[in-house]
Amino acid sequence: MFTMRPVGFVRSPYTETRQVPKGCGAKHEAEGLIEILPEFEEGLLDVEGFSHLYVIWVFDRAGGVCLAGAPPTDDRPHGVFATRSPRRPNPLGLTVVRLLGRDGRRLRAAGLDMLDGTPVLDIKPYLSSVPDAELRRGWLAEAEARRSEG
Amino acid sequence: MFTMRPVGFVRSPYTETRQVPKGCGAKHEAEGLIEILPEFEEGLLDVEGFSHLYVIWVFDRAGGVCLAGAPPTDDRPHGVFATRSPRRPNPLGLTVVRLLGRDGRRLRAAGLDMLDGTPVLDIKPYLSSVPDAELRRGWLAEAEARRSEG
Repeated sequence: MFTMRPVGFVRSPYTETRQVPKGCGAKHEAEGLIEILPEFEEGLLDVEGFSHLYVIWVFDRAGGVCLAGAPPTDDRPHGVFATRSPRRPNPLGLTVVRLLGRDGRRLRAAGLDMLDGTPVLDIKPYLSSVPDAELRRGWLAEAEARRSEG
Repeated sequence: MFTMRPVGFVRSPYTETRQVPKGCGAKHEAEGLIEILPEFEEGLLDVEGFSHLYVIWVFDRAGGVCLAGAPPTDDRPHGVFATRSPRRPNPLGLTVVRLLGRDGRRLRAAGLDMLDGTPVLDIKPYLSSVPDAELRRGWLAEAEARRSEG
């Protein structure tokens, strides 16, 4: 077992889960703050040079674990490790945010899909992308294709 | 505080930290397995349709926290949230792996940079990339530029 502590919290416009855009073509353009706790501010040195960051956070208001279920984008069940469901064995969220600026221990960011008050466990620089031509997106691409045919 | 448990373990060719390629231009081509524990196998349903996966794991052999230090790629210190240093407030690692195949609860993967036996906390599908033209890589790009001039 491993014990994790928040290094900061998200300030976002979303106060309820139903407000967060979900499913195929959902756009995550929400802007807000990632507020790092004062004792970890030194860890932000030079973070402002990166255009994008990974944020690892906790689904602190998710209930229980569901190993296979139907996501909002499909009517067929898929394993939790093949989806972004909050009902995971470890309730970890991962979001790529666009960094708009830094004001001391506050990062202004776009692309948030977390609820206001969400605990943040880690931030990492986004260094490189997988080229689109190499990506396969499994059941999600199939569900999108069925939807556009329907 | 949040308590996390392993959902599986990495089987990689690396048994010591010094064997893992690091720094500018490091290639992570190592192949190995991500073995999910039997009780979580159902969560892998349909994961084989994705070409790439995010793996969130624990630096279980890292010592202590260092909020700002010089990474292998530079002689200047940077904040831990602007680097991939293992000495993080929460010792979380994040790796994008290429999925080569699935055999039951074992995922064959390429691009591993974890030590053999590393605990895995979560796996998520890799769905989209930030276009290279939109990426800025801060101190890392500057360090690479200084190196190529030197």
